[in-house]
Amino acid sequence: MPTPQAVLAELKAHLQFLSDLGGAVGLLRWDQVTYMPQGGASARSRHIATLSRLWQEQFTAPHIQEWLDVLVPYAETLPYDDDDAALIRYVAREYDRRRRIPTDFVAEMSRHLSASRQAWGEARQTGEFATVQPFLEKTLDFSRRMADYLAPYDHPMDPLIQQSDEGFDTATIRALFDTLQRGLVPLVRAIADAPRPNTDFLAHTYDFDTQMAFLHDVLTAFGYDWQRGRHDLTAHPFAIRLSHGDVRITTRFTPDYLNAPLFPSMHESGHAIYEQNVSPRYEGTPLARGAWSGVHESSSRLWENRVGRSRPFWEHYYPRFQRLFADHLAHVPLDDFYAAINVVEPSFIRVTADEVTYNLHIMIRFELEAQLLEGSLSIAELPEAWNAMYEEFLGVRPPNHKVGVLQDVHWYNALIGGRFQGYALGNIIGAQLFEAIQATHPDIEDHIAAGEFDTLRGWLTEHVYRHGRKYLPLELVERATGKPLSVEPLLRYLYAKFGDLYGLNLEP
Amino acid sequence: MPTPQAVLAELKAHLQFLSDLGGAVGLLRWDQVTYMPQGGASARSRHIATLSRLWQEQFTAPHIQEWLDVLVPYAETLPYDDDDAALIRYVAREYDRRRRIPTDFVAEMSRHLSASRQAWGEARQTGEFATVQPFLEKTLDFSRRMADYLAPYDHPMDPLIQQSDEGFDTATIRALFDTLQRGLVPLVRAIADAPRPNTDFLAHTYDFDTQMAFLHDVLTAFGYDWQRGRHDLTAHPFAIRLSHGDVRITTRFTPDYLNAPLFPSMHESGHAIYEQNVSPRYEGTPLARGAWSGVHESSSRLWENRVGRSRPFWEHYYPRFQRLFADHLAHVPLDDFYAAINVVEPSFIRVTADEVTYNLHIMIRFELEAQLLEGSLSIAELPEAWNAMYEEFLGVRPPNHKVGVLQDVHWYNALIGGRFQGYALGNIIGAQLFEAIQATHPDIEDHIAAGEFDTLRGWLTEHVYRHGRKYLPLELVERATGKPLSVEPLLRYLYAKFGDLYGLNLEP
Repeated sequence: MPTPQAVLAELKAHLQFLSDLGGAVGLLRWDQVTYMPQGGASARSRHIATLSRLWQEQFTAPHIQEWLDVLVPYAETLPYDDDDAALIRYVAREYDRRRRIPTDFVAEMSRHLSASRQAWGEARQTGEFATVQPFLEKTLDFSRRMADYLAPYDHPMDPLIQQSDEGFDTATIRALFDTLQRGLVPLVRAIADAPRPNTDFLAHTYDFDTQMAFLHDVLTAFGYDWQRGRHDLTAHPFAIRLSHGDVRITTRFTPDYLNAPLFPSMHESGHAIYEQNVSPRYEGTPLARGAWSGVHESSSRLWENRVGRSRPFWEHYYPRFQRLFADHLAHVPLDDFYAAINVVEPSFIRVTADEVTYNLHIMIRFELEAQLLEGSLSIAELPEAWNAMYEEFLGVRPPNHKVGVLQDVHWYNALIGGRFQGYALGNIIGAQLFEAIQATHPDIEDHIAAGEFDTLRGWLTEHVYRHGRKYLPLELVERATGKPLSVEPLLRYLYAKFGDLYGLNLEP
Repeated sequence: MPTPQAVLAELKAHLQFLSDLGGAVGLLRWDQVTYMPQGGASARSRHIATLSRLWQEQFTAPHIQEWLDVLVPYAETLPYDDDDAALIRYVAREYDRRRRIPTDFVAEMSRHLSASRQAWGEARQTGEFATVQPFLEKTLDFSRRMADYLAPYDHPMDPLIQQSDEGFDTATIRALFDTLQRGLVPLVRAIADAPRPNTDFLAHTYDFDTQMAFLHDVLTAFGYDWQRGRHDLTAHPFAIRLSHGDVRITTRFTPDYLNAPLFPSMHESGHAIYEQNVSPRYEGTPLARGAWSGVHESSSRLWENRVGRSRPFWEHYYPRFQRLFADHLAHVPLDDFYAAINVVEPSFIRVTADEVTYNLHIMIRFELEAQLLEGSLSIAELPEAWNAMYEEFLGVRPPNHKVGVLQDVHWYNALIGGRFQGYALGNIIGAQLFEAIQATHPDIEDHIAAGEFDTLRGWLTEHVYRHGRKYLPLELVERATGKPLSVEPLLRYLYAKFGDLYGLNLEP
């Protein structure tokens, strides 16, 4: 009988192999949207599919169960905080989850999603929901089957949520979102009644290369390590970790309006700085990544919004930015610029929504997913339900499905359920982390106003980043902040910032 | 008992898997020298090693022998020209070769080569041969062991040659090289006695971006398909095939002298155009590549030298090139430019050698490798033997080992033996192919002078490129040209071109 230590060494060697495969798949994907010539597309899809299938087979190989039979009892003899114990717990959970899902199901689902993405591409042109309806019906069926493989559950969306936000469930998130919604609606209404700041000066083309050079310095100050990363242009921005020493970001460009690359790059740098600061001792194991979608978004949205759209940040950077774009900004005072980049406006489109209304866009999607899975809503009823909720939550009704129910790719890339909550959880978690930072460093905003981000990044590294996936999200937040997760910090932050910006006298 | 057809289908699926792995390894290598941040280096080496080891294990898996036991007899029932028969013959040869080499030996050799590359890096700084001597001695020992695994052989270099130029052996190449040397020496001497053309106007910085824009049009005219490729900057130029639809080239830049990217890009495009025109029906099998090193070099050197350094080519392109670089070339007539880019000069350095002396650089290395493996020369004697051969073949003696025996990385990247012959075989094969093209298209140089390359590329595709690795090199050359391989076409070409340039009255 081999010792647990010997079995653990075998497991780690196997995980290193899987990590190497994962790094290769990451590069295949990165290149696919950056530098790959068009002619490489079909072979590239196959390369990715082949390596991903191999990864899946190797992660679910039957001999891993034999290792776990030795290791799971061993982990229970170790202190809870022990790295090996955390690794074994993680692998045991992930192995169980992946083993339950039949290979044929994965292959069938993957074929269906390819076809449904294509249908979505057509529907986006025409605005015809009927084009995607039969595909979404099948996707919903796949989603229910997936949930059943992962039964038991309280709500059929729970297992799907846990694939991207481990430890969360529908009831917990609904409770958080209900409180958040009740808190946000009066704020949104009050803002709608206040005078709208001028944003005309944003409606110009801000030269891409000039923005990129400015961003190079900003991201350097944030602590993004360029020796272990790079910054490229893609249609959809993302951050990707190929190894501890290679965490890349991409950005996009919006001509005619100041948004990208400026804010998307800050957002993606928040993901990348997280990955770059996971402890290198987890390298080669699945713990060497940021902790699931909500915690990851807390970092990206904190650097984008809490830092990059803050007054202290622009107190430091605006003089330079104004000089760089003197054509558009020479006569625009800091306060006007700050108000413009923070304009709050109910709109149809999630990805360009402001900090306040963004959360409502997410809640709509989350609630619709939950009702679809419960069976209280059908796919046929989805477009009208979407429009009705936009009226209820945001007071606007999409004039067509292109800017309505057809706007997001998520349900065509993956199953229905658990696709969106991470974005709003990120805002909630980020606000709670920031309050904890302020408790330790009451002068943190002075640091930001001085262009100094080491204290902020240092705190996040110490309390969040370095742990990788060692702890579950709710555990990590409670350890970092000393409190269970709550929406109060986010509401306090939004009321303070936007109350001030819009001259309101409101309490959350 | 499964039918041969069923077994063949299994083999092809397995080869497709190996091809996908190979495509991933290719991208990992390409990115490593183009866009990877420095911090990614160590993980990247491991990713490549892991996937390469997997490839090797999967190519030599024991069940392939069972498939071959069914398929080899089946292939003999098929016409020789049948694609499946060629594929089975190829896999059987390659499988036999790879199975004979123990996995431990490969790992041990790979570790040794890493260490010896590092020693070479140091020796290149100091010029001390003693630094690499013990490493080369061990490499020579590995080379002999490798040959013995692949025994029987007539000459210990034969199995090593056959890894990169299948079907060739030491005796055949020595015979070709002897004739070539006897033919070249009088030409080199006569040129040395003739007046040297002026090259002063090449000794400037020719703007990189302007050259790249010019090359874009030249390579487009050659037929390089940009939808299925791209062109990047690296320290060492190369062409790489990731799939039929993705064949990339890289180039380098020499400031202060007109050479790169101009000629290296044409050279690499010759490799890439070959790969782009292999029949797509071989995709996913090992036949979907150019036929070994000598034939591949015949294409790259043909496009670089026979086209890119020809008078007809510059008749067409020089007016534009002269306008682009008017600062340096406004007062330089076409004939002077043509003479300068073809200047022949005995030198120490292989990679910058001209068309005539280049072959002598190769023959020196080939002969030294052969003698080392025979045991008639020791590593300790190598530096003096190198210098003596440079005196004998080229009439120059390297003043130090940096520009002498230490100049090439080849013996530190791989074994000693079979590393260099492909470059000179490329010149020999390319000249014979061009004579065959001229026999069918006597006006081919008029096409080139008109900037029309479709006839040339079309002939090469029909007779060489499309076949991939279906035929062995000597077979392919004989099928394409109707004659066995000989050095006469190369000698005729060099005597005609350089006799004309240097005003000589010589016959080969």
